Amino acid sequence: MECEKVILTGDRPTGRLHLGHFAGSLRQRVELQSTHRTYIIIADMQALTDNVEQPDKVRDNILEVCLDYLSVGIDPMVATIFVQSLIPELAMLTMFFMNLVTVARLERNPTVKDEIAQKDFERSLPVGFLAYPVSQAADIAAFRATHIPVGADQLPMIEQTNEIVRRFNGLYRCNVLREAKAILSAVGRLPGTDGKAKMGKSLGNAIYLSDSEKTVSTKIRGMFTDPNHLRVEDPGTVEGNPVFAYLDAFDSDKDGLEEMKAHYRRGGLGDGIVKRRLNEVLQSMLEPIRRRRSGFANDPGEVFRLLREGSQEAREAASSVYDDVRRTMGIGYPNLRVSGS
Amino acid sequence: MECEKVILTGDRPTGRLHLGHFAGSLRQRVELQSTHRTYIIIADMQALTDNVEQPDKVRDNILEVCLDYLSVGIDPMVATIFVQSLIPELAMLTMFFMNLVTVARLERNPTVKDEIAQKDFERSLPVGFLAYPVSQAADIAAFRATHIPVGADQLPMIEQTNEIVRRFNGLYRCNVLREAKAILSAVGRLPGTDGKAKMGKSLGNAIYLSDSEKTVSTKIRGMFTDPNHLRVEDPGTVEGNPVFAYLDAFDSDKDGLEEMKAHYRRGGLGDGIVKRRLNEVLQSMLEPIRRRRSGFANDPGEVFRLLREGSQEAREAASSVYDDVRRTMGIGYPNLRVSGS
Repeated sequence: MECEKVILTGDRPTGRLHLGHFAGSLRQRVELQSTHRTYIIIADMQALTDNVEQPDKVRDNILEVCLDYLSVGIDPMVATIFVQSLIPELAMLTMFFMNLVTVARLERNPTVKDEIAQKDFERSLPVGFLAYPVSQAADIAAFRATHIPVGADQLPMIEQTNEIVRRFNGLYRCNVLREAKAILSAVGRLPGTDGKAKMGKSLGNAIYLSDSEKTVSTKIRGMFTDPNHLRVEDPGTVEGNPVFAYLDAFDSDKDGLEEMKAHYRRGGLGDGIVKRRLNEVLQSMLEPIRRRRSGFANDPGEVFRLLREGSQEAREAASSVYDDVRRTMGIGYPNLRVSGS
Repeated sequence: MECEKVILTGDRPTGRLHLGHFAGSLRQRVELQSTHRTYIIIADMQALTDNVEQPDKVRDNILEVCLDYLSVGIDPMVATIFVQSLIPELAMLTMFFMNLVTVARLERNPTVKDEIAQKDFERSLPVGFLAYPVSQAADIAAFRATHIPVGADQLPMIEQTNEIVRRFNGLYRCNVLREAKAILSAVGRLPGTDGKAKMGKSLGNAIYLSDSEKTVSTKIRGMFTDPNHLRVEDPGTVEGNPVFAYLDAFDSDKDGLEEMKAHYRRGGLGDGIVKRRLNEVLQSMLEPIRRRRSGFANDPGEVFRLLREGSQEAREAASSVYDDVRRTMGIGYPNLRVSGS
């Protein structure tokens, strides 16, 4: 029997999604949803691990992120979009899995290490933050995901998950949990409009999928280019120039783009013209996204209904794996069934 | 309005309960249940934090521990006996609380420190074990417990819980969670039959509430006494002599006991006579316990029914606090209700 291909992917609801998300993962998800059983998690519990002081931000962005999904073409009739905290089985699995991982192992996780350094947590590191890779492993295991689309920086997370899966299957001599493979994103990280390596809300250098036509134009006009390209006739540099990086990511006229790059390099092509081209490309790409978004945004009740149905469906899938996990551990307690309120 | 007095207490289901449990807590619980709203947790999730390799032991001892409760006179019509893992809201609260505690703080917890040393965990410390005080805090908070009966060694656990409660109430400017007070056990720790400081299953020095009359007699006959009390006419030592420690804990004829101690000290009283007295005292105390136990043990279906009902009741109580917690954090998501399977 060929194993069904199952994807788990998703986002922390800490802000609206931007072009970086679109280039790095959303576009790919739209394709994958037709070939893979796709679960998309809005990871509010994980978002809380470094947002305890602003749970309202997490709450408000659940709707925003879901609108972004729908607007780019995630089809809720095909993919299952759900909210992590509505599935208590994920927390239960996390508790079981926490017994299979050592503190030292988590402290060695390169992704967590980087994030701890970035966030200045050091000795005030919250337990929940240290443990979030375990929670992520529970998310992946709960849907028996076989494939996880990630950037290279997230590979240690999949390795951690597979370690837990192997430990569980080995300890309880079973095949209940499945190892997952990474699907590496073909596109590298998109730089910010200011040329910084990463596009991010806190950096104020992002173009959002939900930005209006005017906002997008303004942001493009203000974009960082080649700081040494002072006069039109000067030769310019394409590498590290975010305007070209965006064109690389989104302009489908590859020949036209190569010509433009050559012209820019030898001099005589002004930044204004390149930005105008980027504006054309982005506006025509974003226009249908924006249109779909405003349609859904006008009917939040419908979006909540979709999220409710997705979460209900995800809960049933996760419950079934959770029950298998307990049965395998010998703690299914068939005599002790208690129902939720 | 006077605040209702609520107790949370319980045990890890890793073995049948013994005289040490009876002297240190079970007797007290039987009294407290008539004056306090009493929740008794059979903490299987917590037991798994250092028993991942033998979940069957945890499972089997749920019934045993519950039989012990019923046999000593815990009244399921008054006290609520429940199984921790049947209440996923406790895992969810644990996840929220893990964001309010630092790794460094948990590593400083004296109780956890001692246990880590005892169990030789050191660098292979499982995350679940490090985090169990957070899970305990969730248990206490979920029932808005006001009083926790503990031995002195468990005081740091209550301190940890109250820190989390204060942090939560402070951060979300609310009074949703309640701080708890310790009720310190009046009786010190009962030594083992071999004179070691602690009675424990793994030490093979325990007298169980469920031991038969014959087993109890045999264990008493083999008890450690004063090793220097070689001949009946020699003076003997009462202090550190476990036979007298048990008489101190369980013999209600205090005058008779004082006379016996004086006689033992001045010499002329053989160990056999003291042990015979202890046998009388213990057998008459254990006889009704044994009788009730065998009644319930003959009807495990009824015990499971009680556990199911208790767990259902506990789940409803915990759910209500859990809902309050989420509402207070602003993540109640009234538009997103999903039901369990």
